[in-house]
Amino acid sequence: MTKPLKLLSGLIAVFATVIATVISASLGNAERAATGPRGTGDLGIIIERATGSVLVFDSSERRMLYRVEGLGDLSHASAVFSRDERFAYVFGRDGGLTKVDLLAGSIARRVMQAGNSIGGAISDDGTLIAASNYEPGGVRVFDAATLDLVADIPAIWSGGSSKTIGLVDAPGRRFVFSLWDAGETWIADFAGGSKPVVTKLAGIGRNPYDALITGNGRHYIAGLYGEDGLTVIDLWQSPLAPRRILSEYGRGEAKLPVYKMPHLEGWALAGDRFALPAVGRHEVLWVDARTFDEVGRTKVHGQPVFAVARPDGRHVWVNFAHPDNDTIQVIDTHSRAIVAEWKPGPAVLHIEFTPRGHEAWVSVRDGNAVEIYDARTFEKKGRIEAQSPSGIFLAARAHRTGL
Amino acid sequence: MTKPLKLLSGLIAVFATVIATVISASLGNAERAATGPRGTGDLGIIIERATGSVLVFDSSERRMLYRVEGLGDLSHASAVFSRDERFAYVFGRDGGLTKVDLLAGSIARRVMQAGNSIGGAISDDGTLIAASNYEPGGVRVFDAATLDLVADIPAIWSGGSSKTIGLVDAPGRRFVFSLWDAGETWIADFAGGSKPVVTKLAGIGRNPYDALITGNGRHYIAGLYGEDGLTVIDLWQSPLAPRRILSEYGRGEAKLPVYKMPHLEGWALAGDRFALPAVGRHEVLWVDARTFDEVGRTKVHGQPVFAVARPDGRHVWVNFAHPDNDTIQVIDTHSRAIVAEWKPGPAVLHIEFTPRGHEAWVSVRDGNAVEIYDARTFEKKGRIEAQSPSGIFLAARAHRTGL
Repeated sequence: MTKPLKLLSGLIAVFATVIATVISASLGNAERAATGPRGTGDLGIIIERATGSVLVFDSSERRMLYRVEGLGDLSHASAVFSRDERFAYVFGRDGGLTKVDLLAGSIARRVMQAGNSIGGAISDDGTLIAASNYEPGGVRVFDAATLDLVADIPAIWSGGSSKTIGLVDAPGRRFVFSLWDAGETWIADFAGGSKPVVTKLAGIGRNPYDALITGNGRHYIAGLYGEDGLTVIDLWQSPLAPRRILSEYGRGEAKLPVYKMPHLEGWALAGDRFALPAVGRHEVLWVDARTFDEVGRTKVHGQPVFAVARPDGRHVWVNFAHPDNDTIQVIDTHSRAIVAEWKPGPAVLHIEFTPRGHEAWVSVRDGNAVEIYDARTFEKKGRIEAQSPSGIFLAARAHRTGL
Repeated sequence: MTKPLKLLSGLIAVFATVIATVISASLGNAERAATGPRGTGDLGIIIERATGSVLVFDSSERRMLYRVEGLGDLSHASAVFSRDERFAYVFGRDGGLTKVDLLAGSIARRVMQAGNSIGGAISDDGTLIAASNYEPGGVRVFDAATLDLVADIPAIWSGGSSKTIGLVDAPGRRFVFSLWDAGETWIADFAGGSKPVVTKLAGIGRNPYDALITGNGRHYIAGLYGEDGLTVIDLWQSPLAPRRILSEYGRGEAKLPVYKMPHLEGWALAGDRFALPAVGRHEVLWVDARTFDEVGRTKVHGQPVFAVARPDGRHVWVNFAHPDNDTIQVIDTHSRAIVAEWKPGPAVLHIEFTPRGHEAWVSVRDGNAVEIYDARTFEKKGRIEAQSPSGIFLAARAHRTGL
């Protein structure tokens, strides 16, 4: 070839490479994003507990978008969401805290924040992530953007360092949690910045094992493993005065191991009543939401695990402990009668309603699927295959307190 | 130049143009998208009532992203959001229904659906958009994706065709609305598909002028212009039995023109009480949410227009009619005392809380700005300039009933 021709061919090769790169980059992104630009309000994740992975799904189209792997031990995992609903923060059992990018289907950041952890929360302004730890105990708080450590709150009491449980986010950049060993509840208030003011309430009761905060952020309720009853703290009161309620609660026919105790997050506020899984009994209790007095019971199929209210509060869906864990029952909160019952499959672990309650998503661990039901007709609307699915978390949780 | 050199220079020019086009297209998109891929859960819009435009904003960064123009007469506009929180549906006074793409900052679709319209709603599954019309009256229902007409529901009664008002979305693909001329409330049930089953309730009262549905979708409450009191329908009851409540409600010192009547959307459910702007009086009424009996009153600065509860229900923020419309008062719902008062500026028209209540956004029409406040300290956090702003709507509304 002549020199100009060589130059020409060389330049063409360079330009072709540049163009191919530009085009393939855009195609790659387009393919990766599955659908191009999209809203994130209808996204969600499914925890695959056995494989340390999560599925990102589109709840409108009822289909899986991505599998994201490498999240460690997810055997008792939970998740919260950024206020733009782009990121999920997944709290693993092994102390891993993973920030998952729902749009990219990838891990944005990940830190091993402790040796053994259970549950987490996000502040009402979306800037702080808190994780509750068994080992070394205490609570650690991270910057939601970077996952850099903001504050370390060791749970030191007269007996040493305590495991912490029942961590929730209260309005006003506050986190509330309880000390299993100490029987205390602490409130860490970050209103002033990154150094919390910590209020400590003693005498909560022996071995608080789980807790919840009501949807309005007013009442913190801790379940006790070491004695009967629960403790409620009205966060609107001043001074704070923990109060024992439901003194009968906890007296089952036989003492349950702690891992069989019902989840308190499963407390359903249905109208002006809570529906509450009984401990060691095949019953759902009804509790007046103003007085916290028991006002009735409904006999159910087995030991209830979750009692979840449809967002309008008219129905409560209940799942059960082994060996009755293939069944769902639906209770009408108006009549307190069971209005539907069916068997989605082996090991029904979790129930998540769409935010306005038109569908319920049910994880069937040993069926390796999430089944999707019309929340009014109970007709099956869809199905997503998943490996040993446990928790289902919709990004719409970003906008709620107490989830 | 030699032929090869000419060819070379020609090819370079062509490639340069191609590359420039590819690059400028991506830059254009990047610029247009402001930040590249992003979540949509923290987006929102501000209605610019005088100019027929809306501002799309990022509530986390407290900044305007786009101005979208060409939405027609927005003098009494409202908006609902798609369940993926990508699109806002804006209902204009002139019958225009505009679907705004929050990610692109552009109009996705627009139809003139009637001659004169007031308010709209979106079904709980996010597939149907309904608009309430003065002229020609009745309600029209559209496909949320395409804005194609799905159903036309003329409001025909013995007296002819009625204006419709108080249109809301109830759970189960239902729309509820009232007939100003007929004094009736109709429920259009789309559970079976695109042909609604319409239930008509007569005897609601003379000239219902506005209505609301409670956040759980259970109670529909219509305000009456032609007589005192309000009418509540418990949608859980069967058969449905409209009931008159608050017989004193509406007896102001002087009869107000209809455009000065308080907005019922402003009813705030604060704990187990509603806070309700009195008609023709400088008072906020407290109403028991179980019995609908009045349980107290708080004297306020002027004729209240909106009484909006912070999402935790602890505080209610109130704005006022002319000439007191430069002021905000904050009432503590526990003590019913006024705990803060200030003047954001001339013509405070609307208050929108972030979904978990850490901030309140306040439109100051004649100050040409939206002022952003910490919802606990009342400290000013930011400001967005806007042309005669009226309604502020956060995409988080997508996940709620009754907004």
